[in-house]
Amino acid sequence: MSRFFSRALSGLEAYVPGEQPQDRSYIKLNTNESPYPPSPSVLRVINSSQAELLRLYPDPTCKRLKEALAREYGLSYKNIFVSNSSDEVLGAAFTAYCAGSGRVYFADITYGFYKVFAELQRAKVTVISLGDDLSICCRDYFDLEPGLIVIANPNAPTGIALPAEDIRKIALSNKDSVVLVDEAYVDFGGESSVSLISELKNLIVTRTYSKSMSMAGARLGFAMADPELISDLERIKYSTNPYSVNRLSLEAGIAALEEMDYYRENCKRIAMQRDKTTKELEALGFSHTESRANFIFAKSDSVPGKRLFERLRSAGILVRRFDAPRIGEYLRITVGTENDMAALVAEIERIVEDEKRTDSKKDE
Amino acid sequence: MSRFFSRALSGLEAYVPGEQPQDRSYIKLNTNESPYPPSPSVLRVINSSQAELLRLYPDPTCKRLKEALAREYGLSYKNIFVSNSSDEVLGAAFTAYCAGSGRVYFADITYGFYKVFAELQRAKVTVISLGDDLSICCRDYFDLEPGLIVIANPNAPTGIALPAEDIRKIALSNKDSVVLVDEAYVDFGGESSVSLISELKNLIVTRTYSKSMSMAGARLGFAMADPELISDLERIKYSTNPYSVNRLSLEAGIAALEEMDYYRENCKRIAMQRDKTTKELEALGFSHTESRANFIFAKSDSVPGKRLFERLRSAGILVRRFDAPRIGEYLRITVGTENDMAALVAEIERIVEDEKRTDSKKDE
Repeated sequence: MSRFFSRALSGLEAYVPGEQPQDRSYIKLNTNESPYPPSPSVLRVINSSQAELLRLYPDPTCKRLKEALAREYGLSYKNIFVSNSSDEVLGAAFTAYCAGSGRVYFADITYGFYKVFAELQRAKVTVISLGDDLSICCRDYFDLEPGLIVIANPNAPTGIALPAEDIRKIALSNKDSVVLVDEAYVDFGGESSVSLISELKNLIVTRTYSKSMSMAGARLGFAMADPELISDLERIKYSTNPYSVNRLSLEAGIAALEEMDYYRENCKRIAMQRDKTTKELEALGFSHTESRANFIFAKSDSVPGKRLFERLRSAGILVRRFDAPRIGEYLRITVGTENDMAALVAEIERIVEDEKRTDSKKDE
Repeated sequence: MSRFFSRALSGLEAYVPGEQPQDRSYIKLNTNESPYPPSPSVLRVINSSQAELLRLYPDPTCKRLKEALAREYGLSYKNIFVSNSSDEVLGAAFTAYCAGSGRVYFADITYGFYKVFAELQRAKVTVISLGDDLSICCRDYFDLEPGLIVIANPNAPTGIALPAEDIRKIALSNKDSVVLVDEAYVDFGGESSVSLISELKNLIVTRTYSKSMSMAGARLGFAMADPELISDLERIKYSTNPYSVNRLSLEAGIAALEEMDYYRENCKRIAMQRDKTTKELEALGFSHTESRANFIFAKSDSVPGKRLFERLRSAGILVRRFDAPRIGEYLRITVGTENDMAALVAEIERIVEDEKRTDSKKDE
């Protein structure tokens, strides 16, 4: 930090993203990317890019993509906000509703970026603890002082999902608050709140192309909400980076929606692989949350989380671990291909046995 | 604006970008894009994109692009910050140095986004007026109270450039301020301050791929500065959108640097075309600033700016006009191809004659 850096932000602790090693020699199960490539329509549109697509500014209104998303979700394009990643959507919402020390609510264990966005806006944060089973109790969110209520559903890194009816109750019980539901992982088995948008004028649902749509590299996120809330987000976007979404990603985003069956099939395969691997880990003495996301959140009954993380890394398998209260023993393991997961389970089996042997030697 | 929108930002007036009509039937001289396509190396790398480029998150450190830029500018990669457009770079700087009502200085006539960024940070703004000839007087920037000093060089929309020596004097005279020089247009004939970076620890130079590099559609901007200032910008990026630069644009940005001769040649052609068109407009009774950018800033001695703008638009030629004090009579005309500019001059000639005829009829 230089001596010029704003004192108002001197306590800002930036988000630490999962490692993106550039050598590519790892089985990469640490950042919840899809193991499957984007649909052929996406590669087709990128690989036939014309010079004009690069030379000219993008359409700042993102109208064609909004229209395509509106068709997919049974909404109007006025219900859609498009941005350069769902992180940017979240940032716009925190700015619109928390700037100038507004109130914000989120869980103690959830996506780590909410805390950073709150600090950046110098918002008043109320942390709401998950239950002992790491689930959100919807009643904890009733009748709060007006503010921004942020709920990841399914939650990260636990993967536990709330029924849409719980989101509805929370929004109805907080009519002077904006309720933002971050559905980054909903396509792997959660229940979406999108159908509630026409009823609830204070609900924002955010989505990303990074997980179920296999496009983390293209940076594309969006929000769905009542047009008035969308206009708030647009106002922030036009005050920060009106052209934030590049032309290639806009085209890729439209092309992807032409082949949704392909993505739905991938999500099914990922969910099946998740449940299969979870059972295999159970057999190796792991306990876990009921994940509805494209990751498993599990801990070993014999090997400490930190040690397991490090041994997997040495063996060429990257997973994610959060050095945080209550969850330090857990690993968050992205669901990869069948081969990835077989390699993971085999390696974990080796480590568990090896650690047991070492322990029993110590006992001798 | 919804009733939930932060009161602290209720006065926020978003930037209004130049029109991006999607029907494409205009001669488009309104947003300072390059009339020339990106180099063959760029189209090659995009058109051979592999699925992995889209499936996986980008490298948040943008290391390979930083290294390539460092080689091009004779710096270390630690001197480089890369972001999703130079608007995003500017936003990061305003956040880092103005959050919590810091001071900021910029000209009364300059890039309109500075004012928006300042409002977003609720910064204390001091506007420094241009001289009667619309040029920046460097002495007006000496010995200011500490803050962020922002200078577009060449300035927009005037196109007038300052010598690097003036930037040096300003930075030396304000050692407790950060001096940000926005060099979006420098490649068309301005003098860059990049060579001052090793000497001046309080200087940030920002650049964009949108103009001279023909890549407005890819969204890519960067800053060059002392590593300590770069780390400030990185801290803001990691607190807002660590993966803001998509993988396709990263690759395109690297590929472009392999063929810099092509871009330098384009810049020369654009500068020549600018000077030629400027002379032709002079002959039609226009006065103008001494633009060193890829646009002309000129006003007619007979047709009011608003009327000329509207008549050009009706004739299928888009230029930019700012409805602002002192410059309402001017048009900012992006330098296009030879054909574009011939069509523009011919149309202006028609309009000027037509207006004269109408005026003389009125007089009869």
